[in-house]
Amino acid sequence: MQIGVFGLGRMGANIVRRLMRAQHECVVFNRTPDKVRQLEGEGAIAAASLAQFVHLLAKPRVVWVMLPAGDVTEQAIAALAEKLEPGDIVIDGGNSYYKDDVRRAKLINAKGINYIDVGTSGGVWGLERGYCLMIGGKPEIVNYLDPIFKSLAPGIGDIPKTPGREHLSSTAEMGYLHCGSHGAGHFVKMVHNGVEYALMQAYAEGFDIFRSANSQELTEDYRYDLNMADISEVWRRGSVVGSWLLDLTAMALAENPTLSNYSGYVQDSGEGRWTIMAAIEEAVPADVLSAALYTRFRSRQEHTFAEKILSAMRYKFGGHVEQHS
Amino acid sequence: MQIGVFGLGRMGANIVRRLMRAQHECVVFNRTPDKVRQLEGEGAIAAASLAQFVHLLAKPRVVWVMLPAGDVTEQAIAALAEKLEPGDIVIDGGNSYYKDDVRRAKLINAKGINYIDVGTSGGVWGLERGYCLMIGGKPEIVNYLDPIFKSLAPGIGDIPKTPGREHLSSTAEMGYLHCGSHGAGHFVKMVHNGVEYALMQAYAEGFDIFRSANSQELTEDYRYDLNMADISEVWRRGSVVGSWLLDLTAMALAENPTLSNYSGYVQDSGEGRWTIMAAIEEAVPADVLSAALYTRFRSRQEHTFAEKILSAMRYKFGGHVEQHS
Amino acid sequence: MQIGVFGLGRMGANIVRRLMRAQHECVVFNRTPDKVRQLEGEGAIAAASLAQFVHLLAKPRVVWVMLPAGDVTEQAIAALAEKLEPGDIVIDGGNSYYKDDVRRAKLINAKGINYIDVGTSGGVWGLERGYCLMIGGKPEIVNYLDPIFKSLAPGIGDIPKTPGREHLSSTAEMGYLHCGSHGAGHFVKMVHNGVEYALMQAYAEGFDIFRSANSQELTEDYRYDLNMADISEVWRRGSVVGSWLLDLTAMALAENPTLSNYSGYVQDSGEGRWTIMAAIEEAVPADVLSAALYTRFRSRQEHTFAEKILSAMRYKFGGHVEQHS
Amino acid sequence: MQIGVFGLGRMGANIVRRLMRAQHECVVFNRTPDKVRQLEGEGAIAAASLAQFVHLLAKPRVVWVMLPAGDVTEQAIAALAEKLEPGDIVIDGGNSYYKDDVRRAKLINAKGINYIDVGTSGGVWGLERGYCLMIGGKPEIVNYLDPIFKSLAPGIGDIPKTPGREHLSSTAEMGYLHCGSHGAGHFVKMVHNGVEYALMQAYAEGFDIFRSANSQELTEDYRYDLNMADISEVWRRGSVVGSWLLDLTAMALAENPTLSNYSGYVQDSGEGRWTIMAAIEEAVPADVLSAALYTRFRSRQEHTFAEKILSAMRYKFGGHVEQHS
Repeated sequence: MQIGVFGLGRMGANIVRRLMRAQHECVVFNRTPDKVRQLEGEGAIAAASLAQFVHLLAKPRVVWVMLPAGDVTEQAIAALAEKLEPGDIVIDGGNSYYKDDVRRAKLINAKGINYIDVGTSGGVWGLERGYCLMIGGKPEIVNYLDPIFKSLAPGIGDIPKTPGREHLSSTAEMGYLHCGSHGAGHFVKMVHNGVEYALMQAYAEGFDIFRSANSQELTEDYRYDLNMADISEVWRRGSVVGSWLLDLTAMALAENPTLSNYSGYVQDSGEGRWTIMAAIEEAVPADVLSAALYTRFRSRQEHTFAEKILSAMRYKFGGHVEQHS
Repeated sequence: MQIGVFGLGRMGANIVRRLMRAQHECVVFNRTPDKVRQLEGEGAIAAASLAQFVHLLAKPRVVWVMLPAGDVTEQAIAALAEKLEPGDIVIDGGNSYYKDDVRRAKLINAKGINYIDVGTSGGVWGLERGYCLMIGGKPEIVNYLDPIFKSLAPGIGDIPKTPGREHLSSTAEMGYLHCGSHGAGHFVKMVHNGVEYALMQAYAEGFDIFRSANSQELTEDYRYDLNMADISEVWRRGSVVGSWLLDLTAMALAENPTLSNYSGYVQDSGEGRWTIMAAIEEAVPADVLSAALYTRFRSRQEHTFAEKILSAMRYKFGGHVEQHS
Repeated sequence: MQIGVFGLGRMGANIVRRLMRAQHECVVFNRTPDKVRQLEGEGAIAAASLAQFVHLLAKPRVVWVMLPAGDVTEQAIAALAEKLEPGDIVIDGGNSYYKDDVRRAKLINAKGINYIDVGTSGGVWGLERGYCLMIGGKPEIVNYLDPIFKSLAPGIGDIPKTPGREHLSSTAEMGYLHCGSHGAGHFVKMVHNGVEYALMQAYAEGFDIFRSANSQELTEDYRYDLNMADISEVWRRGSVVGSWLLDLTAMALAENPTLSNYSGYVQDSGEGRWTIMAAIEEAVPADVLSAALYTRFRSRQEHTFAEKILSAMRYKFGGHVEQHS
Repeated sequence: MQIGVFGLGRMGANIVRRLMRAQHECVVFNRTPDKVRQLEGEGAIAAASLAQFVHLLAKPRVVWVMLPAGDVTEQAIAALAEKLEPGDIVIDGGNSYYKDDVRRAKLINAKGINYIDVGTSGGVWGLERGYCLMIGGKPEIVNYLDPIFKSLAPGIGDIPKTPGREHLSSTAEMGYLHCGSHGAGHFVKMVHNGVEYALMQAYAEGFDIFRSANSQELTEDYRYDLNMADISEVWRRGSVVGSWLLDLTAMALAENPTLSNYSGYVQDSGEGRWTIMAAIEEAVPADVLSAALYTRFRSRQEHTFAEKILSAMRYKFGGHVEQHS
């Protein structure tokens, strides 16, 4: 089917490519025109302006917005809403806050325009592996878009069937899922990212214990020279901790076991934060999800003010003057 | 090759079966004889006593001890050490503390007997999937036992090769790894389990946020009826959080999405605890590993004394009398 | 000076009493009239309705609202705003969210009515000890209310002066502080409560380690019968961990060292939660503040769904069936 | 009474001074003689060697060892044990691991020498305020040393009596406590320090939220310029979070509200670590005590290896290249 894609960053461009491979017709638009031209060269229909973008789309128009969460997405959807007509469909495929979906859907529905939120996981691998799609919105619209979702998702592939699912029917096995009403897709994606941070941190702490064991002063208990590339590799095989994130860790450690090419300065996106806020609103103890988020906050500072408070107290009660070693 | 297996619990018995499938000759012994008889029926050579067990093994004898960590393993190895001869090999395949390996290896080496520690991951799936083996001890002995390890491990199978490993040669790709000297195998397995706890807790908190969202009082922000079985399934497909633990979660949720058949009373083994102790000895911040362990401690109590202290303070400063709702 | 107090719960009533002791004239109102009558008996001027309450107050009216945070306070202030006149002053002395102060102040200021937010700490002890007041709003209004704040606060008393403050002039030494513009008082009180939770949890975990040491199976390392009442008492004397919360703990343990009269079911108020949300908005690692909040969440559940997920995974990979011991 | 003090660091020297003020006779010894001479000038009896130190003491000798925990204390006590005679008393007043006390007491008792462990809190303030003493060992020996303990402890002073203690008799009110058999004093001191870390961290995170609120980009929700010196001061007056550590924080912030003179590089001693190990041995959830310890570990590193693992994973799945801002 035909679809318009607004926003051609790494994710947006690859989504266009995966859709075109599946014979969907893609109309593309981006604030900076070079990306539009590149995808035009790959077979997409190029739009030079938002007006042209809307004009080029057949009714009911389907527009996938793939922009950074927050103001950029907000403004883009507002601009689209002014140009679209009743029956058209706006899909927010970015990382929006699910409460913004609820609010925006209400605004847009009032004009007769449909709203769908899609949490999209897959990163730079999605083009080849397919994207895991978590979808929120009205069932009939989600159903109408099924060809799009089916093409973007990985499909059943060679991932083993889950025993016990024989009696269940759901698109989940194909890698996309209608999670519920407006915002449900981004709610599920939000928690997905919260979980992702904690999974990452679990491995990270484990390998830190290895690296640090290697660098301990030599004692009977600490005399190992553990090969972290090999450990990450062996864990991929038959162990309980195998995962795709471990696969990536094994790649990185195989290339450079000291990871000296990485800064250790770790960003976080809104979703990890919103997950904790949801947990707090629901009174769910979220110990590891929070701890994982906080290590990222900490990674971006030289010293926290909290640490200076500790130094100050220690000086005041014990006369300890602390310096960098 | 021939191998003796001492300890025929779930893990021990399956190890015997996987070795026999690979045409190794297994001499088996267990404190309770019924398990011996069962494996005899499957082709193993049965020993009725420790003395007979040792007698039935050709020199240099290879004995795989597969018993619960702690006193049971300690005593079994001590008993074996009295009956074995120089050149024989004892393998501790259980979940021993790596510091015990270091100590025991020294004792046993003094008698000319060799000691190997093997951390074994795979659970009830190991018989079919193969076991991930983390091995510590002298290289020449590890090398001698290679046919055993190769048969127990999963082998390369259909797990994709790690890009970047082309130039590396290691048995890690086959699912077994010589990690270092005495204790190194159990050290790596210890951290493996510490990481496992935190990975499990990460998913657990995520699904708790879903379940709790479903049971919130209905508001605009919380009006979803999320299908957790489907969510766990869709995450297996193309998402960043795919893993074997997620596969198991998807199985459990497919069978019973409320998990009402599970108690929520969660045991922990020594390895999760020792991981934190190692982190502390090394001054490694282990925030999520610790938090994951503590939720298990907490799960086994009705109320902690800490919570009573909180109630008491609250009563004393605010007059709050707290009761079960 | 004259002041109206709306809301005569434990805190509100004691605030009236402390103000009357300082010769302020108090007009009082409450939804349920018995509390009004009781304070009338102690010298307050009773109002039978909100209209009468406003009528009885001299202009510019000063109204201290002391109600539970959330809808109750919201509605009370809205109702007052309809009856008050330009120049009047509304003080929200409850535990409101500071973002609500910002919003409400704007609404009310538009009518010419002044808004002050006051975070009030002191609990049931405040009547005798005085209340610690954290104040937000316009300086001239805060200044106008100084006699009220001074009477409610503890004053300098016999608390030692802080060395280094000789050159600083501030009402902080008297126990009340103008923290900043609208919401600043409740912002500071919010963090105060977040810190309070963590201080409480710190002691709670410490005493749990004592109680649990007492109940360990007897070994050489665990053979103590620690007297927790005495420990809490000795720590009050010359140690680094002395505090008012410890004083309260010592009281509770002196009365009943097993604390069997307390449930261990621990409530939390909005402030602890909002503190974490502020930390997350600011990207401040708030590890202990969060952990303290989560133990409260956990204390109110028999088992979390997270724990059932753990049980389920353990069963699926290891065949572990977990039961209550 | 007469007492020998071995180890004249800051704590040891002030203990001597406080004992001399109470008219006890002090024989002093130290590895470096200048400190011996200084205290001789203040009235102590100086020993030039360990042999002379022992010689100068009247039988039964009482020796207070005040040295850094670990090897230094271990060796000093071993050296003393060779020179002392049955009936003599060794007091370890340092920060030893309580398991070392249990072991050492057994060794020394075998020679008829008595062993007492004393956890000593008070820091540089102890000379004036008195030391909080937590004592382990045999009751008759503790009783014999009562004049020493009484002189070092703060005494009842002007700290209010705990309501509910009227019927209890204990030296706890005087600031010293016999906690139990060998090691009990250091066990209680160990947990004391674990709690101390978490109390410190609670305030530290709270003030970090203030400082960070001040430095947020200006929005309606973040437009405060909070005066942290004043906040710490006002909290000392009538609030729930008042404590001695807060007093010290108020001092530091009064001197320099930015704390720019402190590094934020925070040491930890063995006791904080051993507290967590005890919690783990006892299966006590110690969430805030652990988190407080880990922030200290983290404060001493530029970037953890864990953070580099996170960066590496992020690069591998999302192509995110992270740099220092």
